Amino acid sequence: VEITREFGASRADLFRAYTEPDLVSRWMGPRQYSLEIREYDVRAGGSWAFVNRASDGTEYAFRGVFHSVTPGEQIVQTFEFLGAPGHVSLESATFEDRDEGSRVVIRSAYQSVADRDAILEAGMADGVTEGFEKMDAVLEELRR
Amino acid sequence: VEITREFGASRADLFRAYTEPDLVSRWMGPRQYSLEIREYDVRAGGSWAFVNRASDGTEYAFRGVFHSVTPGEQIVQTFEFLGAPGHVSLESATFEDRDEGSRVVIRSAYQSVADRDAILEAGMADGVTEGFEKMDAVLEELRR
Repeated sequence: VEITREFGASRADLFRAYTEPDLVSRWMGPRQYSLEIREYDVRAGGSWAFVNRASDGTEYAFRGVFHSVTPGEQIVQTFEFLGAPGHVSLESATFEDRDEGSRVVIRSAYQSVADRDAILEAGMADGVTEGFEKMDAVLEELRR
Repeated sequence: VEITREFGASRADLFRAYTEPDLVSRWMGPRQYSLEIREYDVRAGGSWAFVNRASDGTEYAFRGVFHSVTPGEQIVQTFEFLGAPGHVSLESATFEDRDEGSRVVIRSAYQSVADRDAILEAGMADGVTEGFEKMDAVLEELRR
């Protein structure tokens, strides 16, 4: 799965929004969940973990490790939903300049076609789209 | 890419050969290279790094991180050849009992079909086959 999203903000601000836990917690994931970051150690070998919480208290936990972090350029990390343990994906986010702002290209590689289809059916596209809309607001604040 | 290999040894010994650096250095990779392990921290979030060295001194370096380690059952890790930086794969090794011994099932997921084809053309199958032949000898020693 490949996703490209363009932003009006600079690549430096986009990278900040991706890597500073206080900023990440304000945009990542679907609107109907709050996001609690438990660990976000953005360096090669660092771990990350967060929980999405629905208004009825239901929790969805995710975790992974960072394979590599190239400041301002690229992050490669693993991703696992602990509700379906053992189904791990590899995610890269590559940050690029454009004439007016920047873009991120996300590539997700799954261990099977079934894993990929399960994530898509779980509403990955909506979650990502909503997350990036929230990120627009975070980036607007950083620009001020 | 999925690879299955059967061994006469117990699953416990197979897992040892996969996780103890002194044993790993004796079997992993093609016969024509020596293997120097620089880091092998087998736990979720741990890093690994090794160098294959040809007889003419040429070095091929590899690194990655462990996403999860379930003793005796499964290892999930990232894999990167530093000669082609940025081309990362996700590798899982699942260990299973069988009537006489054990088996490992390896699944490798690449970020693109081109990445997968490049690894196959580089001789991945021969390297894995030769490595497992060396591992047979290591496992024979563990059994004594």
